[in-house]
Amino acid sequence: MAQTAIYGVIKNHPVPSIQRLPVYLRYLKELKTNDEISVSCTKIADELGQLSVQVRKDLAITGITGRPKVGYRIIDLIEAIERFLGWNRITRAFLVGAGSLGSAILGYQGFSEFGLDIVAAFDTDQSKLGTKIHGCPVHHIDELTCMGKDKNIDVGILTVPASAAQMAANLLVSVGVRGIWNYTPILLELPNDVICEHVKLSASFAVLSCALKNPPQ
Amino acid sequence: MAQTAIYGVIKNHPVPSIQRLPVYLRYLKELKTNDEISVSCTKIADELGQLSVQVRKDLAITGITGRPKVGYRIIDLIEAIERFLGWNRITRAFLVGAGSLGSAILGYQGFSEFGLDIVAAFDTDQSKLGTKIHGCPVHHIDELTCMGKDKNIDVGILTVPASAAQMAANLLVSVGVRGIWNYTPILLELPNDVICEHVKLSASFAVLSCALKNPPQ
Repeated sequence: MAQTAIYGVIKNHPVPSIQRLPVYLRYLKELKTNDEISVSCTKIADELGQLSVQVRKDLAITGITGRPKVGYRIIDLIEAIERFLGWNRITRAFLVGAGSLGSAILGYQGFSEFGLDIVAAFDTDQSKLGTKIHGCPVHHIDELTCMGKDKNIDVGILTVPASAAQMAANLLVSVGVRGIWNYTPILLELPNDVICEHVKLSASFAVLSCALKNPPQ
Repeated sequence: MAQTAIYGVIKNHPVPSIQRLPVYLRYLKELKTNDEISVSCTKIADELGQLSVQVRKDLAITGITGRPKVGYRIIDLIEAIERFLGWNRITRAFLVGAGSLGSAILGYQGFSEFGLDIVAAFDTDQSKLGTKIHGCPVHHIDELTCMGKDKNIDVGILTVPASAAQMAANLLVSVGVRGIWNYTPILLELPNDVICEHVKLSASFAVLSCALKNPPQ
């Protein structure tokens, strides 16, 4: 079974650094709201419980460098992170599976801040068709192919039951999505040029369980 | 701000290996359903698109070793993984925030397979109080402290809005939870002996966005 994985690095940038950028971004936006102008690595590190050297390394992947004794201009840093992540552009998405997890994602306001525009949701449940969930229209899954043709959809969000995951992924691939955000536990078979980011809730619970069994000394 | 992080290793076991164990477990249970008796690392690796040497290393953390030319007895391997993760015992949980994300977690059948027993959910929404979501009773958040006292709750699951996250975490800590499964974007301040596993959906979307900007060649 092939799985298009996201590697430990993307274009030489370590994935853990990329994963921390939204945390910095959130904090920087808070500072901006409080009318602050600049910030140092040390302050960011102290506030977020990280090492200063790690913060500097993480931020450097966006191409920005701080100035000695001044630090970073907050608006420049926000812009650099958003540009690096592609969050200064709109990412158009279809969501397949409008159950409670799908509804949660449609209702999560943070994603629109990241440029994510969920254009339509799809389901097979007759009672949902023609309704809107958090403002997003729900269509029958049979309409996905037709609707996807002229919509330039970048990403498919998969929130279907495990048994429907591969079929739904195939439909999304057929309308030309370049990435799949997979919330199901299924390892999907995808063409090599389709990127898959897999949210593995069971992996997260495994880490928690294991840590509970082996608590910090 | 202090953040109880789960480190890159737990008791010398690499976190990425721990995170892969549920994937193996799911596959092994499939094999068992098909009445297969034993399985080799090579077969697991081929089916799950991994390197055989990595599979062997991951499985070794559970304390089990395969036999040359025979591989692993499937039932022994399932038992070893479940025991290692603590999934052979019941983990009792309170869930705080019975919105759509909370409902999705209450409805996710996989978690009960991992021994997770969500004893009660809490919310402030009057319309939900006294109802059940996927069989789990919903109480007012004000009842959490009283209800938590004699229930031996291991874990708190946080699915509240960001603005309520720290307050809800404090309540959970006050009733003696040893771990918090944090689905909010907030870095929580927690006592050092409370473990926090943070599901960062924005980090996951950052990786996907970044990979879309830099597609594999």
